[in-house]
Amino acid sequence: MRQSTCCHRAAQPSCTCLTGGRVLISLPPSIIYFLSEDFNINSITVSQAQKLTAPAPFALLSTMTPEGQANFMAISWWTYLSNHPPMLGVCLSKKGLSGSLIASNGEFALSIVSEELKDAAFRCGTCSGRSVNKAAQFGIPTVPLTQVAVPGVAGSRVIFECRLQNQLEAGDHIFYTAEIVAVQGDPDVRQLFAWDGYARLAPVSG
Amino acid sequence: MRQSTCCHRAAQPSCTCLTGGRVLISLPPSIIYFLSEDFNINSITVSQAQKLTAPAPFALLSTMTPEGQANFMAISWWTYLSNHPPMLGVCLSKKGLSGSLIASNGEFALSIVSEELKDAAFRCGTCSGRSVNKAAQFGIPTVPLTQVAVPGVAGSRVIFECRLQNQLEAGDHIFYTAEIVAVQGDPDVRQLFAWDGYARLAPVSG
Repeated sequence: MRQSTCCHRAAQPSCTCLTGGRVLISLPPSIIYFLSEDFNINSITVSQAQKLTAPAPFALLSTMTPEGQANFMAISWWTYLSNHPPMLGVCLSKKGLSGSLIASNGEFALSIVSEELKDAAFRCGTCSGRSVNKAAQFGIPTVPLTQVAVPGVAGSRVIFECRLQNQLEAGDHIFYTAEIVAVQGDPDVRQLFAWDGYARLAPVSG
Repeated sequence: MRQSTCCHRAAQPSCTCLTGGRVLISLPPSIIYFLSEDFNINSITVSQAQKLTAPAPFALLSTMTPEGQANFMAISWWTYLSNHPPMLGVCLSKKGLSGSLIASNGEFALSIVSEELKDAAFRCGTCSGRSVNKAAQFGIPTVPLTQVAVPGVAGSRVIFECRLQNQLEAGDHIFYTAEIVAVQGDPDVRQLFAWDGYARLAPVSG
């Protein structure tokens, strides 16, 4: 196993090594250099980090337009938030259609879609629902839900039915928190994850 | 490939099937029943859903106590939030030590840890930093960071240095949004994910 470059290195007469602001020990610079070489961690961009932290969660988020048309967007930036009550949060671009529909309708669904939807789901992330009826154009099968008026994606591994609770601006996005008012699951469905940042959708293995 | 159950298996003598709010086809109830059987999605609990959506992201979040001791907690509930500026969010129990330290210090680090820390990282999720010096007790190697006064976990695949921006209550948790002020990465490190809900830590394969 690799050893910490940390602190357990530095100085006398030389380097003062700190961990959390506390001086731990001191080693000569040559040892520091050697230990540092044992790790190859370097400054990277957040875009590079997004590739390194993959596979990322992947889902299709569905909303409903005022005209009653379902809209789907591809999303990786979501997380569970609470157990009591059960909640999750989704992070959407300020400019997109889905965010404005969540804010106006107060409802959405999050479908953890099947590997069979690999191509259709990927295409959902490449265009806006303002100009494309994605369900029809990309062949996304829909299913009515029990507690919200928006449909889910049929054949999914999990479908969360969500009711908006709050929203918070975060840079160029808005984070929406929601109560999970119903959830369905099918353990036999193999789900998609986002790989290489968000460049590719594929399942994972253990 | 499975076909959509579509929706509304109701209506007779033939059902109106909707996709995305548009009438697509009509089928007799017997066929609708057959198609519905093709999916085995059922109502489940959110706890069951958390198992089905695994592998989940996994990280160790580090903070600093007023006494200058680093504290580490295991976390799966985090997500990227923004590209400009780069931001991420972490969701922590209202009762835990880490949340109060983030709120008081305004800084934390998120380390996407190596598979070699499997046992130590799992143990971080089983106790409170109020009673245990986890780094010392579980052998977590620390490394000083560049922009924040808290250490990261040495030998990680990615380490995010984060400065608190906002916080939002979400059920029994609080969601903290933060700007990523620095990030380091090592693509040669194999990272851990949470499996079976959060019962097990292991890497993933493609």
